[in-house]
Amino acid sequence: MTRRSHRRRRKAGAIRQLPWQTVTNRWSPVEVLSTDEVEIIIDAAMTILETQGFRYLDNHSRVILEKAGVEAANEDGMTRLDRNMVIEATSTIPTNITLRARNADHDLSIGGNNICFTSVGGPAFVSDLDKGRRPGSHKDMCDYLRVVQSLNIIHQEGGGCFEPMDLPPESRHLDLYLAQLTLMDKNAQAYALGRTRTIDCLEMNCIALGLTRDELEDNTTVLAIINTNSPMQLDIPMSEALAELSQANQVSCITPFTLAGSMSPATLAGTLAQQTAEVLAVATLAQVIRPGAPLMYGAFASNVDMQSGAPALGTPEYAKMALASAQIARRLGMPFRSSNTTTSNCADAQAAYESQMSLWGAILGHAHLVNHAGGWLEGGLTASFEKLIIDAEMLQMMAETLKPIAINEDELAIDAIAEVPPGGHHFGTAHTLQRYETAFYTPILSTRQNFESWQEEGSIRSAERANTIWKQLLAGYEKPAIDPAIEEALNDYVNRRKQEIAN
Amino acid sequence: MTRRSHRRRRKAGAIRQLPWQTVTNRWSPVEVLSTDEVEIIIDAAMTILETQGFRYLDNHSRVILEKAGVEAANEDGMTRLDRNMVIEATSTIPTNITLRARNADHDLSIGGNNICFTSVGGPAFVSDLDKGRRPGSHKDMCDYLRVVQSLNIIHQEGGGCFEPMDLPPESRHLDLYLAQLTLMDKNAQAYALGRTRTIDCLEMNCIALGLTRDELEDNTTVLAIINTNSPMQLDIPMSEALAELSQANQVSCITPFTLAGSMSPATLAGTLAQQTAEVLAVATLAQVIRPGAPLMYGAFASNVDMQSGAPALGTPEYAKMALASAQIARRLGMPFRSSNTTTSNCADAQAAYESQMSLWGAILGHAHLVNHAGGWLEGGLTASFEKLIIDAEMLQMMAETLKPIAINEDELAIDAIAEVPPGGHHFGTAHTLQRYETAFYTPILSTRQNFESWQEEGSIRSAERANTIWKQLLAGYEKPAIDPAIEEALNDYVNRRKQEIAN
Repeated sequence: MTRRSHRRRRKAGAIRQLPWQTVTNRWSPVEVLSTDEVEIIIDAAMTILETQGFRYLDNHSRVILEKAGVEAANEDGMTRLDRNMVIEATSTIPTNITLRARNADHDLSIGGNNICFTSVGGPAFVSDLDKGRRPGSHKDMCDYLRVVQSLNIIHQEGGGCFEPMDLPPESRHLDLYLAQLTLMDKNAQAYALGRTRTIDCLEMNCIALGLTRDELEDNTTVLAIINTNSPMQLDIPMSEALAELSQANQVSCITPFTLAGSMSPATLAGTLAQQTAEVLAVATLAQVIRPGAPLMYGAFASNVDMQSGAPALGTPEYAKMALASAQIARRLGMPFRSSNTTTSNCADAQAAYESQMSLWGAILGHAHLVNHAGGWLEGGLTASFEKLIIDAEMLQMMAETLKPIAINEDELAIDAIAEVPPGGHHFGTAHTLQRYETAFYTPILSTRQNFESWQEEGSIRSAERANTIWKQLLAGYEKPAIDPAIEEALNDYVNRRKQEIAN
Repeated sequence: MTRRSHRRRRKAGAIRQLPWQTVTNRWSPVEVLSTDEVEIIIDAAMTILETQGFRYLDNHSRVILEKAGVEAANEDGMTRLDRNMVIEATSTIPTNITLRARNADHDLSIGGNNICFTSVGGPAFVSDLDKGRRPGSHKDMCDYLRVVQSLNIIHQEGGGCFEPMDLPPESRHLDLYLAQLTLMDKNAQAYALGRTRTIDCLEMNCIALGLTRDELEDNTTVLAIINTNSPMQLDIPMSEALAELSQANQVSCITPFTLAGSMSPATLAGTLAQQTAEVLAVATLAQVIRPGAPLMYGAFASNVDMQSGAPALGTPEYAKMALASAQIARRLGMPFRSSNTTTSNCADAQAAYESQMSLWGAILGHAHLVNHAGGWLEGGLTASFEKLIIDAEMLQMMAETLKPIAINEDELAIDAIAEVPPGGHHFGTAHTLQRYETAFYTPILSTRQNFESWQEEGSIRSAERANTIWKQLLAGYEKPAIDPAIEEALNDYVNRRKQEIAN
């Protein structure tokens, strides 16, 4: 990227934002478990797999495992896994993953100290302050992806910001992939519900990147979230997606959905043990399918509200579980995924502090992927345009916080300190003027207006300011360059597949 | 405290909250500077003190220092301090402080891994959603202190939540101390502007705790924030307060107010060097006055908004500076103070995420005192009733997050996991039912309502819910027990001093 195009991007839609960057956390990870405690949890997970087993609902998965020497499932459908077999199978999981994007500048490096921020995926609803909360539509989805593309701090799209309910369910994944690959040039997750939706994603990414299916195996491009049906089973659509992804050397981010007290025991230790057992069960299957297939250890461990049974997110338990899960994933040598979550129904203080709790848990634990990092609201039922902007501000702040403090003679500024007498100020010194533009973080959303001028301008809260900002970004959106032949080929693919599905 | 009174306190005002507790951070501190970089900054601070000096505006302070062998101030008023003298003088600063409260259950232990949360101090304005933002009054001040007293997670009152503008400025500190010592039984900071206001605080605390002034020296009770006038000077009122506190073996929390780009250089390294120089200059004076007098290293380092010159708080720079300052304080063997700040003008998402940034910086750095932990708004110009509740929720969440995850056989729940089949749920298991009441954090403010029921009830945002909660706390407030003779003596003291001041 030239310096000029770089600068232009920063000013897209007249919103000043940080440039595209790799976010790196050089701090030591915060550890909430001792080394021994990590081993105790992994041992408990192995014990669960050995003595209780895991239910692979897909017949084909069981056949594959049996061929690899695993004992046939019991009458209750539970497949017991020997711990030595699990340890051996999972020893081939790569610790680092490079994920390609249509624009090579947006390739992602997952692992080490890097953190990748992904926009929200999966809600049924969309909301903004103008039209309120409503079922997602294709038009809204495209607009949402345009804003995601415009926000430099978002590294990856989350596999569909919300369902376009105005499109037929059998083929709407094709419209999603087309939008991801033409309106954006960032990496985008797959909508991996079943075999054909996964294959369509692989095929369309091949077209977009100019790769054959064989070449795709050397160019990891597609990542999908593979949720278990906690407790302790993997359903058929997820099994199919896992198989397709693994065979093609693409990434399965294995994520149990464990709300302690409901899908797992009402303790954090028990939930960690169960979650680890589930990840290992699915990881073992994937490594049997293709040793070395890239996988991630995903955690979505929180608790239910014990009064109402409702999910509780962005809680103290959520933050602690992110930290503890990250430790277990590190010990297993698997890249780790966490999320940015809240149960709030609007982009208010609760949404912000629950998201912060989630983000700090992810970042301090050295999560490699923060799913739902931008836009999530209402426990994941809604993707909010305003929350996306609030989250982008918070993500930018995190990225800035992680940047080292420069310590050198010039920065120590002893001469500048000598220059300003007691009671004076540094506004006009040469030292300050040299740094005028770049010294400190410039926010997207936060105001530093004093109360009087803020009040005069209408006492505009952050959610309302965010509303203005996403519209500015949308108005300033520029479709990223694409070879017309590739775009045509993508359209042809979608049209052909839609006809096939209709017949 | 008996178990019964404990339970009653939790339900005060029908608000379920965590019990009074010592908050402890057993995690390793997050370090953003290397050991070498910490030394470089301290060396730069020493160089500043040696070559440029510090301006003690109070004559008496200079005389004391000169008697201790410090060279007389230059014509420009700058007193140069030899680094060996600074190192020797500051070697007597205690690393731990016990702060007594009127109720011994509320005594505070400052140092080690403990974190003390203090309510906002110093604003001119009060605000709530009913009456908006307005100058503080005595009635509002008393109500604010009642809510602070009612919130178990707040350990200490911050030296006046806002100025009671309806009272004469010469004597309003007396009304503050009377309110602190009769409406509350927690420790409360002094309003240490000048000698007599400080002495009044010492005297009234002696009355409240039944101590002579001599006994007070063995019973550290009073803590005051001693702000430097950055850059590089200490004014007369603060010098007088420092002297009175140090002589009486009470705590001076030395806090430079350094906004990089204004009161300090536009670099974080330069601001750290200057801040450290200022703390050491004031600490040296205090230790010369009384070796072993308790002190704290306070940081209020952030940056100005380079576009407007306005303070920027709760920023990435603020969080980083809290972490770096904490490292320097640890190296100097001084307990550390940070804050919870925001520039937002209302209790919205910005207020929450800026406060979270501040709080995480403080907590990860192992701050021993988090000033303004509850209630701060508008860059410190306003104390908000609603923000106090939002902050209390965030502080409770922090306290819970810091609690270790219990790892033992019962918590690992392997049998409970065996009991629930794949696709089942843990709601009804004996393991869950045993933990029904206490398994997870119960919020004060956060809602887990689904969107529909939240909307039916009026789409109430967190700030509005907080409004209901502080009123409930106020309605349920019970004045803590006090010996009538002590209360009478406090009133007598205030009346006598008011007459003296009037004459």
